[in-house]
Amino acid sequence: MGGNGAGRGFDHEKILELNGEGENGSTKSIPPCCKKAIAAMPESEAKCHATVVSGWFSESRLYSDKMGKLLYYNNPMWPGEAHSLKVEKILYQGKSDYQEILVFESSAYGKVLALDGIVQLTEKDECAYQEMMAHLPLCSIPSPKTVLVVGGGDGGVLREISRHSSVEIIDICEIDDLVIDVCKKFFPDLSVGFDDPRVRLHVGDAVQFLRNAPEGMYDAIIVDSSDPIGPAQQLIEKPFFETIAKALKPGGVLCNQAESLWLHTHLIQDVLSVCRQTFKGSVHYAWTSVPTYPSGVIGFILCSTDGPPINFLSPINPIEKQKGALNFRRELRFYNSEIHRAAFALPSFARRELSSLIRA
Amino acid sequence: MGGNGAGRGFDHEKILELNGEGENGSTKSIPPCCKKAIAAMPESEAKCHATVVSGWFSESRLYSDKMGKLLYYNNPMWPGEAHSLKVEKILYQGKSDYQEILVFESSAYGKVLALDGIVQLTEKDECAYQEMMAHLPLCSIPSPKTVLVVGGGDGGVLREISRHSSVEIIDICEIDDLVIDVCKKFFPDLSVGFDDPRVRLHVGDAVQFLRNAPEGMYDAIIVDSSDPIGPAQQLIEKPFFETIAKALKPGGVLCNQAESLWLHTHLIQDVLSVCRQTFKGSVHYAWTSVPTYPSGVIGFILCSTDGPPINFLSPINPIEKQKGALNFRRELRFYNSEIHRAAFALPSFARRELSSLIRA
Repeated sequence: MGGNGAGRGFDHEKILELNGEGENGSTKSIPPCCKKAIAAMPESEAKCHATVVSGWFSESRLYSDKMGKLLYYNNPMWPGEAHSLKVEKILYQGKSDYQEILVFESSAYGKVLALDGIVQLTEKDECAYQEMMAHLPLCSIPSPKTVLVVGGGDGGVLREISRHSSVEIIDICEIDDLVIDVCKKFFPDLSVGFDDPRVRLHVGDAVQFLRNAPEGMYDAIIVDSSDPIGPAQQLIEKPFFETIAKALKPGGVLCNQAESLWLHTHLIQDVLSVCRQTFKGSVHYAWTSVPTYPSGVIGFILCSTDGPPINFLSPINPIEKQKGALNFRRELRFYNSEIHRAAFALPSFARRELSSLIRA
Repeated sequence: MGGNGAGRGFDHEKILELNGEGENGSTKSIPPCCKKAIAAMPESEAKCHATVVSGWFSESRLYSDKMGKLLYYNNPMWPGEAHSLKVEKILYQGKSDYQEILVFESSAYGKVLALDGIVQLTEKDECAYQEMMAHLPLCSIPSPKTVLVVGGGDGGVLREISRHSSVEIIDICEIDDLVIDVCKKFFPDLSVGFDDPRVRLHVGDAVQFLRNAPEGMYDAIIVDSSDPIGPAQQLIEKPFFETIAKALKPGGVLCNQAESLWLHTHLIQDVLSVCRQTFKGSVHYAWTSVPTYPSGVIGFILCSTDGPPINFLSPINPIEKQKGALNFRRELRFYNSEIHRAAFALPSFARRELSSLIRA
């Protein structure tokens, strides 16, 4: 994922300041020893980042409220749970105009990219997300030629699109060029995607880009966005999907990051409902395992515009039959045609909640 | 899961004691303020359990080493990562002859059962584990009559087996009767499984039980064990599988809890390899999403003995065609025949590592 983050970062200094003694007598709810423990935490212990406590990174994390009370930050997208990773070394931290960017080496999942404190990718499991995101749509249409990626500044989805030799143009619209630069430095296995001469990079706002895109330009549009809180909220609203539908060819397809079946059923229902109104072809939900995402899964909404019918459930353009695709730049790690078909099997609880919104 | 835990618990008092000042001068590596912060933590804050810090439960957790240094406990089965749940209320804590038992109300996943600090089930996602564990084997054989469950003291797998009206005998061998009692009190939706008159409870060691089981007694054996560290180690060794194969009818099936594809490939290879030697029919690996298990997935090894061939990939005895099965006691929440077939689709990395050990 990448781009359009939500500005939810806390910085270490702010935590220390909020935990400082004296000011306006609001500190009685933290035992002084706790405040001291935090203030006294050596840099080597804190590893210089607010999300890293005692050498562990966590998406939910210690902070203090206005009254100075020490609390855990509860991410509003997945309240009440947190996944933590042991940090070997912080490799980069910086702030762009849009978000806080953190790169660290974890002991269990290799290098990790976090934006505003939320894990976007890890070296160990990025294969599942990037490969599914690219090949679910591109293997469902006969011979994709023009593809647009929204977000995806890490380059991983580009790398996967490159496996398709039928593709002639890969446009990417990423709002945050610092994400691109940081990934080029620390995630060369992903940013290699930018090296393809078919790639045309547009740094800017995707909403604007799509408003100006030529009608019927793309065979596939892949929305690789961060969670829909803050600026990315626009990316799940009807006007945005309407510009996507307009920019797609007849029978063109959209693949949109679509959260967790376990945690976000209502959000998924809302987005599916908007997609059903906007896209006149098929509307489907697929999902896969990504251990470092909340609840360990991520979903994809797949839609097609009016035109030649698309059967997402059975890839018409199987990756195994495309010359050189399995090993282009690197071996496919996760995706295959069997996993493609399996991704559309929904648990019974999800079937009950989503099936009326799905259209074959 | 249940039973045969590994005694990896730490108790709160022990942590306080290890963090105490003075003794043998070993405390210099913890800043005194940190030690005080822990010692001063009010009961209401700690919520009375070592795994619960600032109101959050975590499988990896703060403790101190012999030198008094404050460390995170790194579970050897999933080093370097941890899933944490916000605790609303601790409902039960106790210690049996085998393990430490903890029940708490979480804000995100309902009630949670942890054995030796490891999440065994939560109300929100237990459906995925219990339903897959029971129906993957039982829907793969024509008309199961006799079933044995090893472990499974919570009763959830029994509840699922009960949906199959062909079943006449459900034996269960659970080592820890305190787990059964605690679940009867706090998890009535699972322990309802024990109310079925077909259930025969045997409290004791499964290794012993299987040694004495009549040859060719069972159509299906389901091993619902905890992780193979400590006593449960025996449950992944060849002699144990040999007693299972002997206790099964020709064409009888085993379903064995089999960890995470993302984390435990070598362990899975080892167990598959033992199973290939022991079971002369099919040997397969299936997997599913369970958010509160490490890496968010859990696997199942499915094997059949010499006899009528079993095609695990396509359920011959679909749950949808069994009268009353979908709604017996409660609606199926996760499993259906499509999810059954999808569970055998392996990511490319896993195919490469496991396919030579799988036998159709």
